[in-house]
Amino acid sequence: MCRWVAYAGEALHPSTLILDTPHSLVAQSLNSPLGKETVNGDGFGIGWYPAGDVPGKAPALFRSVEPAWFDENLSEIARAIETPLFFAHVRAASGPPIQRTNCHPFRHENWLFMHNGALHGFTRMRRELLLLIDPALFPEVRGTTDSEVLFHLALTHGLREDPLAAMSRTLREVERIGDQLGIPHPVQGTFAVTDGTTIWAFRYSSIHDSRTLFYSEDLGTLQQTYPDLDRLRVFTKGARVVVSEPLSDLPGAFIEVPESTVVVVDRTGCRLEPFLR
Amino acid sequence: MCRWVAYAGEALHPSTLILDTPHSLVAQSLNSPLGKETVNGDGFGIGWYPAGDVPGKAPALFRSVEPAWFDENLSEIARAIETPLFFAHVRAASGPPIQRTNCHPFRHENWLFMHNGALHGFTRMRRELLLLIDPALFPEVRGTTDSEVLFHLALTHGLREDPLAAMSRTLREVERIGDQLGIPHPVQGTFAVTDGTTIWAFRYSSIHDSRTLFYSEDLGTLQQTYPDLDRLRVFTKGARVVVSEPLSDLPGAFIEVPESTVVVVDRTGCRLEPFLR
Amino acid sequence: MCRWVAYAGEALHPSTLILDTPHSLVAQSLNSPLGKETVNGDGFGIGWYPAGDVPGKAPALFRSVEPAWFDENLSEIARAIETPLFFAHVRAASGPPIQRTNCHPFRHENWLFMHNGALHGFTRMRRELLLLIDPALFPEVRGTTDSEVLFHLALTHGLREDPLAAMSRTLREVERIGDQLGIPHPVQGTFAVTDGTTIWAFRYSSIHDSRTLFYSEDLGTLQQTYPDLDRLRVFTKGARVVVSEPLSDLPGAFIEVPESTVVVVDRTGCRLEPFLR
Amino acid sequence: MCRWVAYAGEALHPSTLILDTPHSLVAQSLNSPLGKETVNGDGFGIGWYPAGDVPGKAPALFRSVEPAWFDENLSEIARAIETPLFFAHVRAASGPPIQRTNCHPFRHENWLFMHNGALHGFTRMRRELLLLIDPALFPEVRGTTDSEVLFHLALTHGLREDPLAAMSRTLREVERIGDQLGIPHPVQGTFAVTDGTTIWAFRYSSIHDSRTLFYSEDLGTLQQTYPDLDRLRVFTKGARVVVSEPLSDLPGAFIEVPESTVVVVDRTGCRLEPFLR
Repeated sequence: MCRWVAYAGEALHPSTLILDTPHSLVAQSLNSPLGKETVNGDGFGIGWYPAGDVPGKAPALFRSVEPAWFDENLSEIARAIETPLFFAHVRAASGPPIQRTNCHPFRHENWLFMHNGALHGFTRMRRELLLLIDPALFPEVRGTTDSEVLFHLALTHGLREDPLAAMSRTLREVERIGDQLGIPHPVQGTFAVTDGTTIWAFRYSSIHDSRTLFYSEDLGTLQQTYPDLDRLRVFTKGARVVVSEPLSDLPGAFIEVPESTVVVVDRTGCRLEPFLR
Repeated sequence: MCRWVAYAGEALHPSTLILDTPHSLVAQSLNSPLGKETVNGDGFGIGWYPAGDVPGKAPALFRSVEPAWFDENLSEIARAIETPLFFAHVRAASGPPIQRTNCHPFRHENWLFMHNGALHGFTRMRRELLLLIDPALFPEVRGTTDSEVLFHLALTHGLREDPLAAMSRTLREVERIGDQLGIPHPVQGTFAVTDGTTIWAFRYSSIHDSRTLFYSEDLGTLQQTYPDLDRLRVFTKGARVVVSEPLSDLPGAFIEVPESTVVVVDRTGCRLEPFLR
Repeated sequence: MCRWVAYAGEALHPSTLILDTPHSLVAQSLNSPLGKETVNGDGFGIGWYPAGDVPGKAPALFRSVEPAWFDENLSEIARAIETPLFFAHVRAASGPPIQRTNCHPFRHENWLFMHNGALHGFTRMRRELLLLIDPALFPEVRGTTDSEVLFHLALTHGLREDPLAAMSRTLREVERIGDQLGIPHPVQGTFAVTDGTTIWAFRYSSIHDSRTLFYSEDLGTLQQTYPDLDRLRVFTKGARVVVSEPLSDLPGAFIEVPESTVVVVDRTGCRLEPFLR
Repeated sequence: MCRWVAYAGEALHPSTLILDTPHSLVAQSLNSPLGKETVNGDGFGIGWYPAGDVPGKAPALFRSVEPAWFDENLSEIARAIETPLFFAHVRAASGPPIQRTNCHPFRHENWLFMHNGALHGFTRMRRELLLLIDPALFPEVRGTTDSEVLFHLALTHGLREDPLAAMSRTLREVERIGDQLGIPHPVQGTFAVTDGTTIWAFRYSSIHDSRTLFYSEDLGTLQQTYPDLDRLRVFTKGARVVVSEPLSDLPGAFIEVPESTVVVVDRTGCRLEPFLR
């Protein structure tokens, strides 16, 4: 269910990653070899921090229910805007409703959230989980997805203060509710969160067999390995990408994130930490 | 907010009432003289019991987010189908999201529900009201409207057993919650409910100044008054229409429903009863 | 590009063929094993002659740009209507624009037309072909597809008088224009045409290697072969289906139409004739 | 039919003019006091030259078929982007199809075009006019509007070399074709054209009774008149707006363009010239 890409680095046109690479996100919307579903045609979204905006400002969102592959507005916008940090997502729904409020990324103030995977037994858990959301945040839940509920649970659990702790508490809470309702191994997925400066990308599932997640090799290292490769030149040192599946088959370009791990990307680089092991 | 029409009688093409009368529902989507808003362009819906279906079978729904006025699918379907009982609705939202799950009518099993008006302070009441919905019905709430919540509250309160009592309890409960939260006069609207055989149409607001509601004069009486009027001939005796505002300016054709009243339409005719007076 | 199904027989709900068979048309929209593209997510359409309508009356059309697989309106309508003859189509576009005017089937008076395949070099031929359309029919061309142009060329060449001759002339004319412009083998596809009583389904390409086309075996024969198969019981004798690819893997149920052949289905049965050999 | 706004000046967020003024373009989509139709709910579009782009680069386009008034993507994008020159448009169609290819502005290379008004008798003239379009430009015509045809006729007549002369020739040619077909006074409207540096805005109709057109007063003059008005401070000297109807009722802020006149806006200021008088 779903494919996504998160980028941080010098400002660039998102089209570079979501349209103009061999296995771009938009190409994956029609055919994602590593996806649980190969077609991710149930809407898309992009959330971006416009180049030049002051830190802490809310990002912009463009989300729509059409398949991404022939969407002319997505193509126009991805080529027109410039951003040092963006999230983009193509959705494979498990069923209707296909509506904009179910498209990722989700936003709260200066935060973005997106998800690949699913909460098993979500229909049975949904009411319980909604009740656990801070009543002040509750009116912001406008769609029907598990992902939006997870985001608001994480906000409830302090995402803005301590993302790692909040995501831990959130996923453990879902597992606890699942346990109460007799739903084994309810959590499955990869999760990306950002405040506009740092990206946290989690790979976790209750059964410890999560959807794939990759991060890009250090650009300096890559450019040394491939000194003649033109398409690496659009990226500057420090640029990092975290993705559901590699955007190209260039050997060494994308490194798999281990199970139960979080990738943290910020101006100082990229590091991996155990998560819920 | 919104305009609607409910019909019961011999099977006819809904186009007769929603497209082919001078002040048809689709004409009202662009310009409704009696509406709080004159433009009802935020989606539409039609729910119908196909002619020939056995009683008790669920009706069909066609709902979409486009304005009704130039929607070619609505025009095609309204001319192609035949039905002895249908609800049709054009929506004027108070804001986004504009999505199919917010379009009326709403359906549960063989029941349909639609609404014109609003719950004041709904954003503040929504969580409390959702909690009052039977948990078994809760997963069916997929949109963000007050109307869908009202319908599921009414189902919780026994709509299928006693529609009048259930609607009374539901609206009184909303008023109670409003009172708790310091929201005066929260209920405003007209509400239509059907099981496929009988239509109940309510005009009620907490402040006793409700949106308009009309029902059509007895066809026999009308045909006696206007013996030469061709367009009355498409209707058979016993045909009844309940509407937010008259579909024509034919004197005597539409009679206003008094404040705090329910209109009950079934095979035996049409009667008015006091409601929450 | 595209998958389609044409049905003639006793009135049934189109859902029987487009939703409720193992390889239904809607299932094929997400995954069509025999298609040139496996995903047909660029809109869909259904054109039907409502049961009870007099012969010669125009059919109804419901067409939309969303993928068919999770479209709730399609599912509702396909289960609600009944029709003795319908065309349904899911589209795989070669590119934008994705718009309702590009969705099949196309309609003129009581005629429907749909197409799987493409005119190669269409962008270069389009202006020439448009000029060959009867000026009286020209205003009806509202989209950008080769298919809609072909239909109006066929109408220009007498489709309503002699469908076989008109389709021959049309495809030969396209080949002539292709020849003039240096486009080899411009025609590719399968084409379905109906007047509401008879279905003509053509398999033809200039290079004699056309997209697949199948018709269903005689129902009596099938029911003799599979006397215990419940799902055949919804069909009556005389029911026939013509499809881009089989709707089930029941051995013997679907028979491939040979290259350069037209299938003619009417009340008297189903016959094959050579076409442009 | 339709409302539009064209802006040139220092880079700003288009939201300043299309969302955040009392009679903003989006407000006019729901209610335009000076419009022939008061509702302009049949889609919208914005074409912009991103701040920082080199002159001569093609602008970006975001166009969609929903009403503008509650469109969250329009609101997001209009607040996120910055541009020194943009065109925005809300559409009131005369009928279906409502599709993205019929939304203004239209683009060719670095040029944009938009229109308010109509060619009378266009259905009868359309084929003749299409034939007059340069065959090399013909494939770019993808919708069904008179406006898109006018733009491509103007390109055919040298818009890129001499906009005034090309627009003259184009409208005269339409009048000539109208004359041939017995259509009196076929041209009606206001027309805006830009190459990304200069805006040409025409007010013209064959009957010399055109849709309204206004341009904004010199900012320096306005700021002297209203030294305390905060909302003028977002604009810098040299900023100019050309609009179908005033964006505010500030006396003196908007000046009506006379009949049969072109407004030319560029870095040197704003000047009026007679057009087709």
